[in-house]
Amino acid sequence: MKSYRKELWFNSPTRRSFINITPEVNACLKESGIKEGFVLVNAMHITASVFINDDESGLHSDMEVWLERLAPEKPHSQYRHNTYEDNADAHLKRSVMGREVVVAITNGELDFGPWEQIFYGEFDGKRKKRVLVKIIGE
Amino acid sequence: MKSYRKELWFNSPTRRSFINITPEVNACLKESGIKEGFVLVNAMHITASVFINDDESGLHSDMEVWLERLAPEKPHSQYRHNTYEDNADAHLKRSVMGREVVVAITNGELDFGPWEQIFYGEFDGKRKKRVLVKIIGE
Amino acid sequence: MKSYRKELWFNSPTRRSFINITPEVNACLKESGIKEGFVLVNAMHITASVFINDDESGLHSDMEVWLERLAPEKPHSQYRHNTYEDNADAHLKRSVMGREVVVAITNGELDFGPWEQIFYGEFDGKRKKRVLVKIIGE
Repeated sequence: MKSYRKELWFNSPTRRSFINITPEVNACLKESGIKEGFVLVNAMHITASVFINDDESGLHSDMEVWLERLAPEKPHSQYRHNTYEDNADAHLKRSVMGREVVVAITNGELDFGPWEQIFYGEFDGKRKKRVLVKIIGE
Repeated sequence: MKSYRKELWFNSPTRRSFINITPEVNACLKESGIKEGFVLVNAMHITASVFINDDESGLHSDMEVWLERLAPEKPHSQYRHNTYEDNADAHLKRSVMGREVVVAITNGELDFGPWEQIFYGEFDGKRKKRVLVKIIGE
Repeated sequence: MKSYRKELWFNSPTRRSFINITPEVNACLKESGIKEGFVLVNAMHITASVFINDDESGLHSDMEVWLERLAPEKPHSQYRHNTYEDNADAHLKRSVMGREVVVAITNGELDFGPWEQIFYGEFDGKRKKRVLVKIIGE
């Protein structure tokens, strides 16, 4: 069994954003030389997500509105977590969208359906944060 | 390390449905001959889910009502994604229910608790869609 | 490829609770002797979750309030599942928080960011329930 590890770094200029990281994950897969296995892609921070969905700006706008409705950022005082922080909503939004994805590797490629793209979902940005790419297989 | 791959195809006659795919995943596992490892089961489409829950029709009815409350289908015009499409709600419902499950394989069996069953969750049906089953192990 | 399996048992005195199980998962990893691979940690029951977030009591209180808003326990009669049971809300809360996490293992350690901790999320306690830890790798 072979394994491969890489950290991807992000620094979102805005509090919230969705970044398509499929090209970076693909580059990791090529570098690993692994042909059959699984790739795990996970946020290393607990106010961010990795998820798979559509690369369509209208949908991303809908997601922003929807997540704000499910777990509003403000008023910050509505959350007990926000005594020294202001990011309780980011922890909740990340809970909806998920921490990680596991993707099959087949014949050296990400084994994807027609529209699957991997996103980094930032919910508390304006600072450096990381995603872990770990691949196991042969 | 051995690996196995199979696509399962579905064509739900309704826009939304929950289909128990545990027998199909079990058949894949037997066919693979893998005794120890992980099976990844994921929707290959971004308006569908694979999740583990109870095979109880009352609960499925509750889930339908609940997901419609969290991310209503109509009016279609409430979503910016719905300029050429009408399925923004399906992308959001799938975000709640998840894209994939990873299940342990032990002694050649799905290593499940007493009530765990794998479901395909369709949120934008009436067409052919796929689930990927990928198994790695020995 | 090596594999390792262990069940962790819980009996929450309250209906809902969050329990940090990172030390138990770490102990499994040490016992396994696996240095590179993946660990899957999943609830074996469909009214409980395993998730990764912050070990901060204010946030846990926020999560309890938030999950009760998204999927209220009472009145029990609002759910069709609750004919012989009273735990439909627990199935829904678990759907939001997720069944499982997959964590990378690197150099014999859980490959975590600075604040990642693994939690067992109980939504229908007061009885014995289990979490599965399965590790594969080398």
